[in-house]
Amino acid sequence: MENNKSIGNYLIERLLQLGVNHVFGVPGDFVLGFNKLLEKSELEFINTCDEQGAGFAADAYARLRGLGVVCVTYCVGGLKIANTTAQCFAEKSPVVVISGSPGVNERTKNPLLHHKVKEFDTQYKVFQEITVASTVLDNPDTAYSEIERVLTAALRYKRPVYIEIPRDMVNVTLGADNQPSSNNSSSNPDALQEALEEAVNLINQAQHPVILAGVEIHRFKLQESLLKLVEKTNLPVAETLLGKSVINEMHPNNLGIYEGAMGKEFTRKYVEESDCVIALGTFLSDVNLGIFTAKLNPQSFIDVNSEKTSIHFHNYEDISLVDFLNGLLNADLKHRQVDLPSRFLLPTNFSVKPGEKITVQRLFERLNLFISNDMIVIADVGDALFAGADLVVHQKSRFLSPAYYASLGFAVPASIGAQMANSTLRPLVLVGDGAFQMTGMELSTIVRYGLNPIIIVLNNLGYGTERPMQDGKFNDILLWNYSQLPTIFNAGKGFDIRTEDELELGLEKSQTYTEGFCILDVHLDPQDSSLALKRLTKALREKV
Amino acid sequence: MENNKSIGNYLIERLLQLGVNHVFGVPGDFVLGFNKLLEKSELEFINTCDEQGAGFAADAYARLRGLGVVCVTYCVGGLKIANTTAQCFAEKSPVVVISGSPGVNERTKNPLLHHKVKEFDTQYKVFQEITVASTVLDNPDTAYSEIERVLTAALRYKRPVYIEIPRDMVNVTLGADNQPSSNNSSSNPDALQEALEEAVNLINQAQHPVILAGVEIHRFKLQESLLKLVEKTNLPVAETLLGKSVINEMHPNNLGIYEGAMGKEFTRKYVEESDCVIALGTFLSDVNLGIFTAKLNPQSFIDVNSEKTSIHFHNYEDISLVDFLNGLLNADLKHRQVDLPSRFLLPTNFSVKPGEKITVQRLFERLNLFISNDMIVIADVGDALFAGADLVVHQKSRFLSPAYYASLGFAVPASIGAQMANSTLRPLVLVGDGAFQMTGMELSTIVRYGLNPIIIVLNNLGYGTERPMQDGKFNDILLWNYSQLPTIFNAGKGFDIRTEDELELGLEKSQTYTEGFCILDVHLDPQDSSLALKRLTKALREKV
Repeated sequence: MENNKSIGNYLIERLLQLGVNHVFGVPGDFVLGFNKLLEKSELEFINTCDEQGAGFAADAYARLRGLGVVCVTYCVGGLKIANTTAQCFAEKSPVVVISGSPGVNERTKNPLLHHKVKEFDTQYKVFQEITVASTVLDNPDTAYSEIERVLTAALRYKRPVYIEIPRDMVNVTLGADNQPSSNNSSSNPDALQEALEEAVNLINQAQHPVILAGVEIHRFKLQESLLKLVEKTNLPVAETLLGKSVINEMHPNNLGIYEGAMGKEFTRKYVEESDCVIALGTFLSDVNLGIFTAKLNPQSFIDVNSEKTSIHFHNYEDISLVDFLNGLLNADLKHRQVDLPSRFLLPTNFSVKPGEKITVQRLFERLNLFISNDMIVIADVGDALFAGADLVVHQKSRFLSPAYYASLGFAVPASIGAQMANSTLRPLVLVGDGAFQMTGMELSTIVRYGLNPIIIVLNNLGYGTERPMQDGKFNDILLWNYSQLPTIFNAGKGFDIRTEDELELGLEKSQTYTEGFCILDVHLDPQDSSLALKRLTKALREKV
Repeated sequence: MENNKSIGNYLIERLLQLGVNHVFGVPGDFVLGFNKLLEKSELEFINTCDEQGAGFAADAYARLRGLGVVCVTYCVGGLKIANTTAQCFAEKSPVVVISGSPGVNERTKNPLLHHKVKEFDTQYKVFQEITVASTVLDNPDTAYSEIERVLTAALRYKRPVYIEIPRDMVNVTLGADNQPSSNNSSSNPDALQEALEEAVNLINQAQHPVILAGVEIHRFKLQESLLKLVEKTNLPVAETLLGKSVINEMHPNNLGIYEGAMGKEFTRKYVEESDCVIALGTFLSDVNLGIFTAKLNPQSFIDVNSEKTSIHFHNYEDISLVDFLNGLLNADLKHRQVDLPSRFLLPTNFSVKPGEKITVQRLFERLNLFISNDMIVIADVGDALFAGADLVVHQKSRFLSPAYYASLGFAVPASIGAQMANSTLRPLVLVGDGAFQMTGMELSTIVRYGLNPIIIVLNNLGYGTERPMQDGKFNDILLWNYSQLPTIFNAGKGFDIRTEDELELGLEKSQTYTEGFCILDVHLDPQDSSLALKRLTKALREKV
């Protein structure tokens, strides 16, 4: 490291080294100095309309790139992304929150500076609750090691971290404290060996073992290892909703999404009747488990993720998911003959019924054929997610959604982050009208940076997922003319869709119009819902 | 109190008793039960598009009504309003945050319920940092006293509070613990007497005393007392920016806004040269003080607000602002002859120059004449606020703006809260394009509830206030066709304004069209700015 580097420039250099090329945010006076440094650097600053949009975009970017960055001003910027950062925590998305703040020299005598809430460290305290590591770079002598400590935590735990830079520290030269930190996250070898031996025995003895693959396979970039394990053993693989598409959904061993009563009956039975479920990198959250309609027997459960390893009713300490999976790859596991119904997940043909009112089910049947190899599906919360879960995605990890934390408004801004992370992908955004009204105007950012997602608005005049639970006026929302939004931005194309042939036309034109965004306003019956949501409602009713 | 009341219904009853008629929010599954109770009650639930909009609306409502309420779901709703709640804390706006949450019975064994971040109390901990009181109503035996404790704190400190209701507690009957709490906020009589005597002597001995009135005059509803004091003594009154219009701006003793170099020279000189400044309910924050360009001499300063009382360099404990102001009203204060330039604040005539490109200065000169008695001016952050400060507002407290915390995006949603709080007012919203792009689509809520603000978009293609500090691409924003927004909602009227005669026409038509919102897209030169911002920039340059 050169010794004359400023704190701000060093942070930028480290982010570039870690594969980050874009920073999402909104400027503000306490962060303008850092914004100026960014402008001079190779990191591109992507202005969103609101900080919330930047937070969601950085989350999506992190899911694809392995690290994302959102850069905001003090409190009025930072506190606006408390929610998106919380989502990153809950769903393990390693986002670095960089916030400018009042200079160290401005803080003496505790003046009432604008943007201040209670104390100067109020924002810092809030972020301590929703990140795995946080720091205020108020000392050039420790800035180097603090940056390293915090970035290391983001990479190790795949969770958000917080870096606050007082504005008078941005251009201060780093101190000499620059010994490299040690990043030792390997397992206890004895515990690992014992756990592997036990697991391998159980798997080999089982009649119908099955792998249940979760989102950490993606976060820790273990997709290739998982694929090798599947090909070595020929075991079938189900995915959790949050982990959707960690293995190619066209792969013959892919059983589809396991999500209790919400998922398909075949997948549910296969997993629940298995005598050895090998859960790798899953979170057993309520949404993943079909709102607790799952029936998994702990006596046939091997559960390994970055936070814990347990087999049946006992736990092992200090075992990393990476090491465990590599251990399985090197172990003496049987190659099996498994008799799966052939290609049961493949979509069937779709023949348009002209003039027929479009329904949720028919929409998703059609979309299943529309998805191409260069698309990434991004589903917002609600039926966009539940129905989206049944789509067959072609490549691994081509499906993004906040399937656990479930914050509405993710999908449109996430499409910005996703396309910035991988410009060869065209996002297919599935978003309810309620979620769209929260963050959909980030279309502006999409136009500004020349992106071209296809946005399907599931327009059912309200919060459709809530209606079966408890309905009232509070679930209604106003009708917008979504297809007219291109006139606001002088860009993009809009389609108003009520029938199957209008859908067909809209999809065809979206495929050929690649210069900008396409928005398809799909008018659905407020009482209509996907098969998945109907399955869930039925199961919950049976429980009552 | 009846003994068979549920926790949810009791909370609703207390809010109604305290003068609240509207609750702003977005529903979500953990709060649906409470939403259902609200629907059956006399409290009207106002759905906004995003929780951020609800937070700002409730803030505005609280500023006008004395108490506001925002109601959201757990984490994905609550954490979205961390920022708006922080603003309420910083600017003393008593908003009750009500959040649904997972049921007490759902929390056993710490499952991964959706919307959960780290622990079940993560959201509660975050709100402890940004409210004056907070509670989780997880026990029917203490729910009564907890509700009282928290609401009392909101009213006493004029700051936000947090009430979380686990969803299985909403319909649980309150326990018997219902002794009324004591609310004793009166002053120490000896300290009060000594401070009053000292202050009265100083005021009577001074040659040119002046009152500096702040926002707490409004929050504690002391406008009438202040007016009486002015009429009893004939003292001139300056206001802080945050306290703008706590006294009728047409009053002959009103000196206008004192804000250091940012304010008008006459007001600045009058206050800074005074030998006795009586600051009542002011916060001496940086924005109020013209980013610290104010030159106030502590040796001639009497400073009384709800948090402290100091005269010159010594402090008194336990003196309430209300008691002090009442004390002054009853004290033997001189009635003075004060020679103020007559009606120096009154706007002059405005003659339209047809075809002339509109400028910030001319726009505000024209708006000064446009404001009528039934209007409330709501200014967003930026030049909307700085220029807006020079407007002459007709009635007391008819000017709302986040002048201290300065969170962009306040004005449009605030207009919803303001008009719900007082349906006889028509909001005149002054908002920059940057702020509008954050929350402007709450126009949807405006349409849904039949409100009719006039919205002036100061369209200068970016964050104009930041350009003089540090300019770059990051200060640019995309051009929207704001005047086309009525086509999205099938409601409202839009006007595209580039010249003085187009402005004239737009204002005229807005005055007569009262059925819905009017949006005036005023195209300004990106380098143009108000006189106030120019004064500030000049002063800051002199400091460098």
